[in-house]
Amino acid sequence: MRVSRRGAVDPFIVMDVMEQARALEAAGRHIVHMEIGQPGTPAPAAARAALGAAMEAGPLGYTAGLGLMELRVGIAGLYQRWYGLEIDPSRVVITAGASSAFLLAFTALFDAGDRVALGEPCYPSYRQILKALSLEPVGVAASEANRLQPVPADLEPVADLAGLIVASPGNPSGTMLGREELAALIGHAQARGIAFISDEIYHGLDFGQRAVSALEISDDLYVINSFSKYFSMTGWRIGWMVVPEDHIRLVERLAQNMFICPSHASQVAALAALDCVQELEANRAVYAENRQLMLEGLPEAGFTRFAPPDGAFYVYADVSEFTDDSLAFAAEILNGAGVAVTPGLDFDPERGARTLRFSYAQGRAEIVEGLARLKAFMAARG
Amino acid sequence: MRVSRRGAVDPFIVMDVMEQARALEAAGRHIVHMEIGQPGTPAPAAARAALGAAMEAGPLGYTAGLGLMELRVGIAGLYQRWYGLEIDPSRVVITAGASSAFLLAFTALFDAGDRVALGEPCYPSYRQILKALSLEPVGVAASEANRLQPVPADLEPVADLAGLIVASPGNPSGTMLGREELAALIGHAQARGIAFISDEIYHGLDFGQRAVSALEISDDLYVINSFSKYFSMTGWRIGWMVVPEDHIRLVERLAQNMFICPSHASQVAALAALDCVQELEANRAVYAENRQLMLEGLPEAGFTRFAPPDGAFYVYADVSEFTDDSLAFAAEILNGAGVAVTPGLDFDPERGARTLRFSYAQGRAEIVEGLARLKAFMAARG
Repeated sequence: MRVSRRGAVDPFIVMDVMEQARALEAAGRHIVHMEIGQPGTPAPAAARAALGAAMEAGPLGYTAGLGLMELRVGIAGLYQRWYGLEIDPSRVVITAGASSAFLLAFTALFDAGDRVALGEPCYPSYRQILKALSLEPVGVAASEANRLQPVPADLEPVADLAGLIVASPGNPSGTMLGREELAALIGHAQARGIAFISDEIYHGLDFGQRAVSALEISDDLYVINSFSKYFSMTGWRIGWMVVPEDHIRLVERLAQNMFICPSHASQVAALAALDCVQELEANRAVYAENRQLMLEGLPEAGFTRFAPPDGAFYVYADVSEFTDDSLAFAAEILNGAGVAVTPGLDFDPERGARTLRFSYAQGRAEIVEGLARLKAFMAARG
Repeated sequence: MRVSRRGAVDPFIVMDVMEQARALEAAGRHIVHMEIGQPGTPAPAAARAALGAAMEAGPLGYTAGLGLMELRVGIAGLYQRWYGLEIDPSRVVITAGASSAFLLAFTALFDAGDRVALGEPCYPSYRQILKALSLEPVGVAASEANRLQPVPADLEPVADLAGLIVASPGNPSGTMLGREELAALIGHAQARGIAFISDEIYHGLDFGQRAVSALEISDDLYVINSFSKYFSMTGWRIGWMVVPEDHIRLVERLAQNMFICPSHASQVAALAALDCVQELEANRAVYAENRQLMLEGLPEAGFTRFAPPDGAFYVYADVSEFTDDSLAFAAEILNGAGVAVTPGLDFDPERGARTLRFSYAQGRAEIVEGLARLKAFMAARG
């Protein structure tokens, strides 16, 4: 039976590591998971309780395509709380995670063949979703001098761009764009008629300076966010976009047809999660401690080349002094140390052969154990 | 800010009716909802209980991209139960409703510009999702003589087709393809190298002959189904595909990147729903009674031209003796009778100006009341 060309996207390389880790665990070995980009904590207790009550109160039928208005209002309130911004709730589009938001944004903005720039290293699925939609991903290597975030000078030589995706805090780097840096990128894009998409999925998980939203700079762009990370709801597949006023109807029609609506159950849980500040800030305090452990422990293990992350829950290290095959090195660490880590190739098809991503999204005890194992393993490796 | 051409999909016309109905209800009027294509019943009790327990037992994190293996095995078991078929669970792909299944199937099978045939009348989002993916929907008018289901002769004159989507029971018609008719369509498609996609979302809701699955005829096609209708879980956004053996990896890579995974919460509920046979068969008994009420009541109200539906929960009537503007007629019925119905234009851009869809998915009391109102209104209208 026929297959499409655009369906030929790349596999996730981290899946190989996870499969190897599963096999080791099935054979009785204990593995510390530093490869996983999701919290070890559940959805907030009040979110679960709200769904428990709602699903007994009546059928959870289709909602409006753009989502429950209470949730859209609640998210607008989050922009007030986090950034002091007044956002019209009608601009908030509820989606099935950031994933569906990307599908909606890309179909609303781009036609087949359009070129969309990505600062590399970046979340690997940007590239694959673009390909699946017959769009052309254009990787732009961000420099270490700029802490692996793109700057206008990186984009200037790149012709014919229809879009630009930026993430701050970044995945895998955890580094952030300051207000001036973000404004410079937005200004560059807008001057060239390039649609700007700001992936803000790690907002709320910042450990020094507050993360800046692109909406603090302009309303004429797309912002994508999710309940997965700060709100600890990965498996619930619930997120949102904020779109320009004059794109609401366009996105609504696409959302109605492509998705009908996001999960009603997850919307109910997400609405309650917005108010769980104490529980979520306690989670963040754990990440902040974990981050400190990583910043001290990774260099002790010999991993010294990384930009200290401003946010998210990753450290992205240059391991070129040890390998030019990060996949083999990750396998060696998994087998030798019992620690699963992510080879950089998923995030950067070129330089990723010499990088690893370490996640500190799990609990403190696992981080302590993982760092001890890495230290012992690397010392023995010599 | 730029917008794409492919994002310019058509609005749902039924949304206008629903908006008018909401306005009337807000003004204090009681409206009977015969426009809505979803059960009035909740997810099965055991499904809700299973989720309640699971969400307290631990975090609901990401699942595998193709979904929980238990659920894939459970769905394979459903094919045994319903059709006597042995389906390898590895061919079952869990999706966020049939909507995500269409997105996955279309990207796996078709490239930008490819032409995909739809028997009209049909579910309107087929056309819009195809457009959003830069594909060309090719409407093929199914004839009343064939009870509004396509036949090979309808397709023969249509050149350069990459795909064909068929639904049995159909929406809006509720009519089914028998085994020979379905086999003829599949044979025609396969002889021409056309990918065959069978939308089986109304399976389980049949009222005479059992619905035939395309998988009873061939393994070399895509079958799409959902927990929305028979399993009464619309707002949970959970469905599935069965794909050919040699397409599993392709679809898995796309699913991982485009969606990461379907809602873990909804997967847990869906798994338990598979066993709720008694509750779901009780729901079906209500539809069967409603159907009988409609078959008797609609003609009494003057709506005599329709093929008796074999399945789903719709009656699709030719109202050309009353109007050639189904949108205006639906508005007249809403205002005059207090009954919301769907104008046919959503399903058939041509002939739909002279058709209406009546849903009997709600409870018996609403159907009785709706039919009484329609009868009185049409009698007064003369």
